[in-house]
Amino acid sequence: MFSEQHKLAGVAHPLGFTAAGVRAGIKKSGNLDVAVIYSDRPAAVAGVFTKNQVAAAPIRVSKVIVGTGNARAIVANAGCANACTGEQGLRDAEKMCEIAAHELNCHDNEVIVASTGVIGVHLPMDKMESGIKAAVKELSRDGSVNAGNAIITTDTYSKTCATEVEIGGKEVRFGVIAKGSGMIRPDMATMLCFITTDASIDQKLLQTALSEINEVTFNMISVDGDMSTNDMVVVLANGAADNKKIVDKGEDYQKFYDTLKSVCTELSKRIAADGEGASKFLTVHVHGAESFVDAKRVGMSVANSPLVKTAFFGEDPNWGRVICAVGYSGVKMSPEKTIVKFGDIPVYAHSVGAEYDADALKKVMAAHDIVIDIDLGEGDSEATVWTCDLSYEYVKINGEYHT
Amino acid sequence: MFSEQHKLAGVAHPLGFTAAGVRAGIKKSGNLDVAVIYSDRPAAVAGVFTKNQVAAAPIRVSKVIVGTGNARAIVANAGCANACTGEQGLRDAEKMCEIAAHELNCHDNEVIVASTGVIGVHLPMDKMESGIKAAVKELSRDGSVNAGNAIITTDTYSKTCATEVEIGGKEVRFGVIAKGSGMIRPDMATMLCFITTDASIDQKLLQTALSEINEVTFNMISVDGDMSTNDMVVVLANGAADNKKIVDKGEDYQKFYDTLKSVCTELSKRIAADGEGASKFLTVHVHGAESFVDAKRVGMSVANSPLVKTAFFGEDPNWGRVICAVGYSGVKMSPEKTIVKFGDIPVYAHSVGAEYDADALKKVMAAHDIVIDIDLGEGDSEATVWTCDLSYEYVKINGEYHT
Repeated sequence: MFSEQHKLAGVAHPLGFTAAGVRAGIKKSGNLDVAVIYSDRPAAVAGVFTKNQVAAAPIRVSKVIVGTGNARAIVANAGCANACTGEQGLRDAEKMCEIAAHELNCHDNEVIVASTGVIGVHLPMDKMESGIKAAVKELSRDGSVNAGNAIITTDTYSKTCATEVEIGGKEVRFGVIAKGSGMIRPDMATMLCFITTDASIDQKLLQTALSEINEVTFNMISVDGDMSTNDMVVVLANGAADNKKIVDKGEDYQKFYDTLKSVCTELSKRIAADGEGASKFLTVHVHGAESFVDAKRVGMSVANSPLVKTAFFGEDPNWGRVICAVGYSGVKMSPEKTIVKFGDIPVYAHSVGAEYDADALKKVMAAHDIVIDIDLGEGDSEATVWTCDLSYEYVKINGEYHT
Repeated sequence: MFSEQHKLAGVAHPLGFTAAGVRAGIKKSGNLDVAVIYSDRPAAVAGVFTKNQVAAAPIRVSKVIVGTGNARAIVANAGCANACTGEQGLRDAEKMCEIAAHELNCHDNEVIVASTGVIGVHLPMDKMESGIKAAVKELSRDGSVNAGNAIITTDTYSKTCATEVEIGGKEVRFGVIAKGSGMIRPDMATMLCFITTDASIDQKLLQTALSEINEVTFNMISVDGDMSTNDMVVVLANGAADNKKIVDKGEDYQKFYDTLKSVCTELSKRIAADGEGASKFLTVHVHGAESFVDAKRVGMSVANSPLVKTAFFGEDPNWGRVICAVGYSGVKMSPEKTIVKFGDIPVYAHSVGAEYDADALKKVMAAHDIVIDIDLGEGDSEATVWTCDLSYEYVKINGEYHT
């Protein structure tokens, strides 16, 4: 579904979209740091934003833009989060919109802005201005790779994918770039994720789809339990596919919804797998819960446990730490009813450790992708949380990432 | 207040108490691993226990004993937690009581049991039996140091202290040994802590005092956010000081309360400072909150943030991570009203970074003990949370601590 060719196309895979990423000198490393994504026609826009009360300036500005229901462009930078920057920060974020709008011949309030990087530092607006101007000049159907690289920070690679689906006899395309590696945890996107589609869809339905999908995809990731000040997921839908506009929750909506969900799921997994310092990708699947909320809480309790995460880093099948995290999750559970598996192998069942084939379990623990399966035996609800292990490298990255 | 001499006396400092610690072969290392604390007369007992629903067998057994209001002895082991061990585990914990009661000539239901170590493994009861017998033979006024060392696991040292206070014209003594290094976080004591006193006090008042003090001492520690299956704090008060029995909340009770609180505060700080792999001791003082609960939640959000903890490990004054954790704590806060200080130095005030003397701040960050002071500017309530940094050593300890 997500081919290599599509990966290169990314956010410029849908018709009518172009993208670019340039070096503006905002990152100390000198790497790409300013991205622009542009639609050649007005697009319906939907977004979800961090719930952190210390929301960064671009969050506050972009929420207003998304509130209008329409947008043409996204301007984003890495290297400086423009968070905790007061009134000056707000003016700088608005100025980003103005500069881009001027270059793109659109209105200020059609430009979404996003920033990621160090908190508490003002944007270097001279560099930003020349960066945005250079990026607009470079906008192309081939620009998604550079745009993706311009928004990453401690990520080891840019996350992107693209796909298409037939809706109402027309091919509708989706593209996405995302970043996120530290300060990753539930209760919002906890990263930057920009999705483009050439679908024609009612803006309210677009927001409904994104909000619902966000709850079971991006909000199910946890790297370190920290919710960032700058997270956002934004979808632009420009209608260039020329499908009959989706205006109700019929068959076309369902296809659109399913495809958007598959894109968001794919990106969520990639973000968790590329968590800071990660050497393992862990899927915590909780079922037999009384509700989705219960299942998610148990999953997050396990996924956020430093003891669980370090055990998997050490490839140690320490199920005691897993059941311990289940027990303090705050969700009513019974040790007698609970079963824990690593991969397909039961390690804890009905209040005691299970007998297992040590060699088979060793193979499970040695793999890069590991499923922790928890059956609470209480009900019919389930949830899946994605996370990674906790390694020396995480400490190195975050102990040495100086302000 | 807490002298070196007293440290050696520990739980055998109060009159009528003796202690011992022996090698029973339960720890793989061959170190001391079975402890007995004994009162030569019946003592009022109070306890607080883990809220983890996967409570270990000794927790379940000891809760019943504490429920009777009286006890004579505490038997504890390290090296095996007797958690997730089913019916067999319960029988083993009860057997520990029986063996000790037989040796001590007291009743089975006068013996508190506690275990710490690996989850999911059955106690080696033959070793346990000879260990308890040997420990009882060695009981002495000098035995607290060995008892303290017999209950530690990944702790780098045994935590102990002792003190006295005049109550109603009589000298009343307190002694304590505690362990706790990993699986440490709020919502219960999250460790083993045994407190002895020769005070004469009504059992219900003793429990009231312990429960209240626990909320602002042991429950304010966080090392890694993990709540153990085995935590307990137990106080034995045997009345050997011959003070007029404390039966109401008068002046004597207040003195008793204050002294018990100072002992619990001291131990809480030491446990946090000796968190697994800790190189820094962090005090998060939150004030200006609308309630204690709010203040504690903010403090715990900061104390549990891996990004904050790694920043302090790296001696990086990354206040952005602190204010970020305040913002997602779930407590209503306003960036405009909030002030964050490291030591005495304001680093964030009223929604932006503060100007500071970089050299002075460097000194604060280089110290072993660092205070993170957060003024929410909302009300008059406060809370203090104690934690430590997150180091390579934490990952090493927990990635390599194999089951």
